[in-house]
Amino acid sequence: METWDAIRARRNVRQYTDQEVTRADLERVLEAGRRAPSASNWQPWNFVVVTDRRQLTELARVWRGAGHVATSAATIALVGAEPEDDAQAQRLQYDFGQATAYIMLAAADLGIGSGHAGVGDQADARRVLGFPEDHFCAYLIALGYPADRPLRPIRHPNRRPFDDVVHWGRW
Amino acid sequence: METWDAIRARRNVRQYTDQEVTRADLERVLEAGRRAPSASNWQPWNFVVVTDRRQLTELARVWRGAGHVATSAATIALVGAEPEDDAQAQRLQYDFGQATAYIMLAAADLGIGSGHAGVGDQADARRVLGFPEDHFCAYLIALGYPADRPLRPIRHPNRRPFDDVVHWGRW
Repeated sequence: METWDAIRARRNVRQYTDQEVTRADLERVLEAGRRAPSASNWQPWNFVVVTDRRQLTELARVWRGAGHVATSAATIALVGAEPEDDAQAQRLQYDFGQATAYIMLAAADLGIGSGHAGVGDQADARRVLGFPEDHFCAYLIALGYPADRPLRPIRHPNRRPFDDVVHWGRW
Repeated sequence: METWDAIRARRNVRQYTDQEVTRADLERVLEAGRRAPSASNWQPWNFVVVTDRRQLTELARVWRGAGHVATSAATIALVGAEPEDDAQAQRLQYDFGQATAYIMLAAADLGIGSGHAGVGDQADARRVLGFPEDHFCAYLIALGYPADRPLRPIRHPNRRPFDDVVHWGRW
């Protein structure tokens, strides 16, 4: 898909068909995430990929907003080391945001929908995912083919008007 | 450009040719940023677009790592309201990261290079950009055509190995 179409077609998808995401497609999406830029190229992310239904069902319980993880074809957990200070925590969030966008756009390019979720209970997430004690799971990115309709460029996105967001020259 | 090519072609570009970025291309790149997802669709971003050479030169002084802004064809400043608490600060960083990736990939799609920079001196940034007192400039994204070579998919990116980053099933 053309980049401009993928950018306009991505939307939050939280209801999925039964269709699996192939290993090759998962690898491509993960490769996109791995290639995301980060501060001084520190690459603070680790990706834990879950496709087992029982594990997905358990993972869906780590936050009230993560219910759609249970029915996803696959979910990528973004795991990082506990930041050392506030500045590092902010850099980590910014760079996790970049990796998330890379993952979601690479998925959209393949017609795969995505819906992210936060994580409330780290102990629960650690039990399901097995990451070390000094790490935490920042986000879950659920993937699957949209149950409602295929991804297509959206003409009028529900966003603030362009002229409200953009200032030319000065605020 | 195909999405997968744009994802693999984007790299940090800090040296630019003299070629301008057209208004139409800037609008597309900004539109991509506007379409980025954010927590509960709060869209915490504002984009101030600078193309005036004198203003770019001044803007390049807001941080020691922002020198390349001076010679960029255009720079987009990401401006947000001061967060109310730490949780909101982290959400803002994550969502600014997503918007940054959208902007950079939309630019790469057009053959335009990008290089981000932090902001050290908020008072200086405010003087150049004119944003309100209760807002801050989180990042600068400099844009321009690469001076060295056109953007092309990178076969071996300088990133941690795939198998080091990705865990299947469990960590």
